[in-house]
Amino acid sequence: MGVNENVQKPLDRLSEKLAAEMEAVNALIRARMSSRHAPRIPEVTAHLVEAGGKRLRPMLTLAAARLVGYDGPYHVHLAATVEFIHTATLLHDDVVDESRQRRGRATANLLWDNKSSVLVGDYLFARSFQLMVEPGNMRTLEILANASATIAEGEVLQLTASQDLATDENVYLQVVRGKTAALFSAATEVGGVIAGAPEAQVQALHDYGDALGIAFQIVDDLLDYGGATQTIGKNVGDDFRERKLTLPVIKAVAKADADERAFWVRVIEEGDQRDGDLEHALQLLSRHGAMQAARADALDWAERAKAALSLLPRDPIRDMLSDLADFVVSRVA
Amino acid sequence: MGVNENVQKPLDRLSEKLAAEMEAVNALIRARMSSRHAPRIPEVTAHLVEAGGKRLRPMLTLAAARLVGYDGPYHVHLAATVEFIHTATLLHDDVVDESRQRRGRATANLLWDNKSSVLVGDYLFARSFQLMVEPGNMRTLEILANASATIAEGEVLQLTASQDLATDENVYLQVVRGKTAALFSAATEVGGVIAGAPEAQVQALHDYGDALGIAFQIVDDLLDYGGATQTIGKNVGDDFRERKLTLPVIKAVAKADADERAFWVRVIEEGDQRDGDLEHALQLLSRHGAMQAARADALDWAERAKAALSLLPRDPIRDMLSDLADFVVSRVA
Repeated sequence: MGVNENVQKPLDRLSEKLAAEMEAVNALIRARMSSRHAPRIPEVTAHLVEAGGKRLRPMLTLAAARLVGYDGPYHVHLAATVEFIHTATLLHDDVVDESRQRRGRATANLLWDNKSSVLVGDYLFARSFQLMVEPGNMRTLEILANASATIAEGEVLQLTASQDLATDENVYLQVVRGKTAALFSAATEVGGVIAGAPEAQVQALHDYGDALGIAFQIVDDLLDYGGATQTIGKNVGDDFRERKLTLPVIKAVAKADADERAFWVRVIEEGDQRDGDLEHALQLLSRHGAMQAARADALDWAERAKAALSLLPRDPIRDMLSDLADFVVSRVA
Repeated sequence: MGVNENVQKPLDRLSEKLAAEMEAVNALIRARMSSRHAPRIPEVTAHLVEAGGKRLRPMLTLAAARLVGYDGPYHVHLAATVEFIHTATLLHDDVVDESRQRRGRATANLLWDNKSSVLVGDYLFARSFQLMVEPGNMRTLEILANASATIAEGEVLQLTASQDLATDENVYLQVVRGKTAALFSAATEVGGVIAGAPEAQVQALHDYGDALGIAFQIVDDLLDYGGATQTIGKNVGDDFRERKLTLPVIKAVAKADADERAFWVRVIEEGDQRDGDLEHALQLLSRHGAMQAARADALDWAERAKAALSLLPRDPIRDMLSDLADFVVSRVA
């Protein structure tokens, strides 16, 4: 443990606690993202994997397994599987969104081409399925295969729902579960399953991941409109420009008068955006308290995540996971 | 059995023999390609699935399982899995190749957009993994997960290798195993495994699928240059225009003099193609006997497929599979 434990961020404390296992996950990722025959594959994956995501999702799997007492080797495979699914999804997302930057670096579709991103993403999906087979556990296979289907379904749903003003909070929640929470909840649940934890604990781990993922995504969507402070910094308004209907806008649309509704129809449904529209959108979000209401939802999901932990063993890891839920929403505190 | 059995094509005879099981496969495909949340998914998949491929790959799984005496229900799941993987691959291939037509119909990427093709392809991959988990058989899972990785690796390899004149017949064979034969051999092998067939029979089924798939792809590549007759019909020259280095060209390049080599460098490596280049390419293929040599290779692989069958039980299905190998190469006879 570091001397500054109390001021470290929860994810850093988890990283320190699980350092040896995370090193094994990283070694497995490096070994499995290689390709004997196609050198383009390690080029693309190295670019993405070494860009250094925070490894949040595999960390959740390791933490969940350890929290319920697992001392076998297979949480490492499952954690690597989860990161492969996540990385494959990022590659395809960047093609779909025509993104040019991720984590401050040029995206693979820009550096190579869309073809490489599509096919290397497919390769990583296939590698993830090879990895998830290795523990020989049918139930973790089902959970991860189901999560993969939910992710893809959520992405397709987002294609059609995000520019449709009829999209309500229920549909938003489906999209969010697909694009984010399904992998979070699978990550924590498989940790419990591989450990052979009692059913109530497995369910609690699932619920924690689900609620954490939803809170995480709502916060992301809030930050895209400048967060609680609503200052227009860099990257603010990406979702607006891409006409993605996220929670703050859904809440503002629900309270819109006729003029406001016409505005949202023009900028989101019709995609006719002009100078000053983002500023006007921010005014409408403010007028209807949409940012504050979405923030309250995020805090509520963080509380649900923490509540789920109460069914799990007392352990420093449990405290870190609880702090992690607070930390996720602290970005909009 | 139909009265015209002897003049029916082998695939039609297999379809008739396995009609009840193939109907179960089709019902399973229809059920699993739906989506509760995202209506775009069944739109895209119905367009592709109902375009009516010949269901060759799932038929191979059914035939393999039945040939070695399987009477359980799970060859149906495995056959549907194989077709889902194939369909997902087609969706992504059409994005990568920027195709506009498949099986005489507009491609999904043209009718909807690349985004839908990428994400619905991902959904079908995920659905295929859900399906392959259901029989609860670890070895079929490994075979199908490995095949998926080999397919994606072969596609990426093709991206870089196909416009590189250094690509030789060994690399071509790797690409072909990836893009075609890996799924054929997995399709037949899982049929044997789910039936609990002896190891020698499982290996023979794998070898049959592998050799059949290679013969199938060489024939496809030959037909793209007009087949044995080398008449320029419709669709002839697609591979040439897309600068794909296939077996006939590899053989011609290997025998090229300096002038001919400069031609291939210009049209394939540099992509500088002019009027009359396809005709000149066909002359070079003819001059070096490249079409005939590739055809001989295809016939040889068909013979290997048939030889593998000798280790399997005598059965009408075995005869049909043997005839199928002959039929595949009869297109260039």
